[in-house]
Amino acid sequence: MRTLTIVSERHTYPVIVGAGALSRLPGVLDEAGLGGRHIAIVTDDTVRKQPIAEELVTALEQGSFTYSFIEIPAGDAHKSLDTAVSVYGELLAIGFRRSDVIVALGGGVVGDLAGFVAATYMRGVPFIQAPTTLLAHDSALGGKVGVNLPQGKNLVGAFYPPKAVVFDTRALLSLPQRQWVNGMAEVIKHALIGDADLFATLEAQPLRQCPDAAVLEPILADAMQVKVNIVNADEHETGLRQILNVGHTIGHAVEQCSDYELGHGEAIAIGLVLEADLAVMRGMLTMEARDRLVQLLLAHGLPIRPQERDFAEIAKRIQVDKKHGRRGWTFALPQAIGRVEVVSGVEEDEVRRVYQRALEGESA
Amino acid sequence: MRTLTIVSERHTYPVIVGAGALSRLPGVLDEAGLGGRHIAIVTDDTVRKQPIAEELVTALEQGSFTYSFIEIPAGDAHKSLDTAVSVYGELLAIGFRRSDVIVALGGGVVGDLAGFVAATYMRGVPFIQAPTTLLAHDSALGGKVGVNLPQGKNLVGAFYPPKAVVFDTRALLSLPQRQWVNGMAEVIKHALIGDADLFATLEAQPLRQCPDAAVLEPILADAMQVKVNIVNADEHETGLRQILNVGHTIGHAVEQCSDYELGHGEAIAIGLVLEADLAVMRGMLTMEARDRLVQLLLAHGLPIRPQERDFAEIAKRIQVDKKHGRRGWTFALPQAIGRVEVVSGVEEDEVRRVYQRALEGESA
Repeated sequence: MRTLTIVSERHTYPVIVGAGALSRLPGVLDEAGLGGRHIAIVTDDTVRKQPIAEELVTALEQGSFTYSFIEIPAGDAHKSLDTAVSVYGELLAIGFRRSDVIVALGGGVVGDLAGFVAATYMRGVPFIQAPTTLLAHDSALGGKVGVNLPQGKNLVGAFYPPKAVVFDTRALLSLPQRQWVNGMAEVIKHALIGDADLFATLEAQPLRQCPDAAVLEPILADAMQVKVNIVNADEHETGLRQILNVGHTIGHAVEQCSDYELGHGEAIAIGLVLEADLAVMRGMLTMEARDRLVQLLLAHGLPIRPQERDFAEIAKRIQVDKKHGRRGWTFALPQAIGRVEVVSGVEEDEVRRVYQRALEGESA
Repeated sequence: MRTLTIVSERHTYPVIVGAGALSRLPGVLDEAGLGGRHIAIVTDDTVRKQPIAEELVTALEQGSFTYSFIEIPAGDAHKSLDTAVSVYGELLAIGFRRSDVIVALGGGVVGDLAGFVAATYMRGVPFIQAPTTLLAHDSALGGKVGVNLPQGKNLVGAFYPPKAVVFDTRALLSLPQRQWVNGMAEVIKHALIGDADLFATLEAQPLRQCPDAAVLEPILADAMQVKVNIVNADEHETGLRQILNVGHTIGHAVEQCSDYELGHGEAIAIGLVLEADLAVMRGMLTMEARDRLVQLLLAHGLPIRPQERDFAEIAKRIQVDKKHGRRGWTFALPQAIGRVEVVSGVEEDEVRRVYQRALEGESA
């Protein structure tokens, strides 16, 4: 078990990572001054059936907490204001008070959506992130919560820190292969951003499926530490934190253009490669480093080429990205394995060239 | 011109009150580090036609700011997630970035809704409160933003402080009589909560319509100072700030039961009297103080008796109020002119008795 610490403007909170972490939840709640509160567990209809849901129930019962389940349909298409409205309604129906606690049990969709509900229901109630997917090792850290609009992803949201992140890695054992690999895309992203040693570890031993706890825990905790360090330095994304968006500017666009047929990690893998291509074209990154990234993604069975053939569709979606200033596009681009930089004033034409070349590469 | 200061967890910001305050907006924006940003003015279709909208345009043009208007329909019925969604859409359509600034120009509905949009669009953008009604001297202070759900008022929202409140009292000159009087209910509430001298001033000279700036400014600034002091002591309503809810627990319920035919201030006037009755019944408040309150409200032409005849309808709406704990109801009740206390564990039966008596009083 490893415990990391996030220092938010509002409060400092623990991130507990390891097999059996959920058994610590009652103690975590008590330490956060939330003893005796009613717990609303927001989860999706897939996670609800998994053993981890029962682990959570057992932990809450041992701590003598009362609880209710609120289920949402699984899938990013449901990370919407409509789903939030249905959760508000269920909370009101069970008489949920702003002194009570929401536990988000699930992957990134559940965490983002339940976190947004927690941030906005009665102007904010305490919540706990209990991620159950590898992907969520990323999204559960740093207090970003939100929902999608038809116009784009995460366009509505808040910075709203949880009272704790409790990541019980037992949940990962039941992950389907494709979901596991999707999560590895974010682990690789974190290594690329800030941990060259972790990158080399993964090169030496790619993790195409969930390994033993002894192997998993240090890798996962190291990847999370990269993000924790950045979030602690720039909670509200006024600067440094934007480097975490590497792969995401193009990644979100290809994800949307695929109508979410691409998994988030798959889309990010494609985005990472295209943004590395952009960095190479700008003379910021060596071709060798770019090739190491491509090889590591391929070694994990991740895609590296976009499917959407119409760049105009991609550009339209890049255009609405939150981090652009008023002139040109802003990207987080890799400079080396372990280093990423924010670059503004990127022209649509540069991205088009990179994109077209990737399309040709695919058909070559 | 008076300037008050609010110390929020996130930042400290000025509250500028007086005739011509809007002409200071460009300077305020510059001081807040928002020079050169694009300004989205969110307002309603009524305010848009009033002289104050042109005053704002003139001020922005003098400061060389670019701006766009986003209009919403006037009225509390439009303080909804649906309206928020339409504003998100318009912001996206004009290419509004998270470095840009929203100015909420209007009454409480516009301020709450535009503030909620500012709190959640791309996880939060800077905004300015520019209230144009007397009622909004209350709602624009303290960073509470939000929208209604069909189940109740303000059930979705956030604590999200503006970068400044610029209250140009010239806007009040064109207020219809009924809106003016509605606003006076909140001025009287603030006097009841924390300024017995202000209460006495209003008793000596009731303000049934907007007076000269020389009379208005000190009264308005004193009423706002009551709220500022409380908000500065308890921004997130963990305790003290709940006293600001006096009159609102029953007030919101009668407002909803009237299908918003009652104005907010009218509903609060009724709520203040009923909650004073409750305080008298509990031995907390003298009948003499209660009668002074009733007289002052009547002197301003405000209603003091509820219309809804079915208490069950009222009780249902009180039940979903945010501030209740898990046992009994929580009320902010007056103890004296100038003093209010939070009381929990109030039984439905007590409220029913008070309510039924008020109904009988009406028909007597």
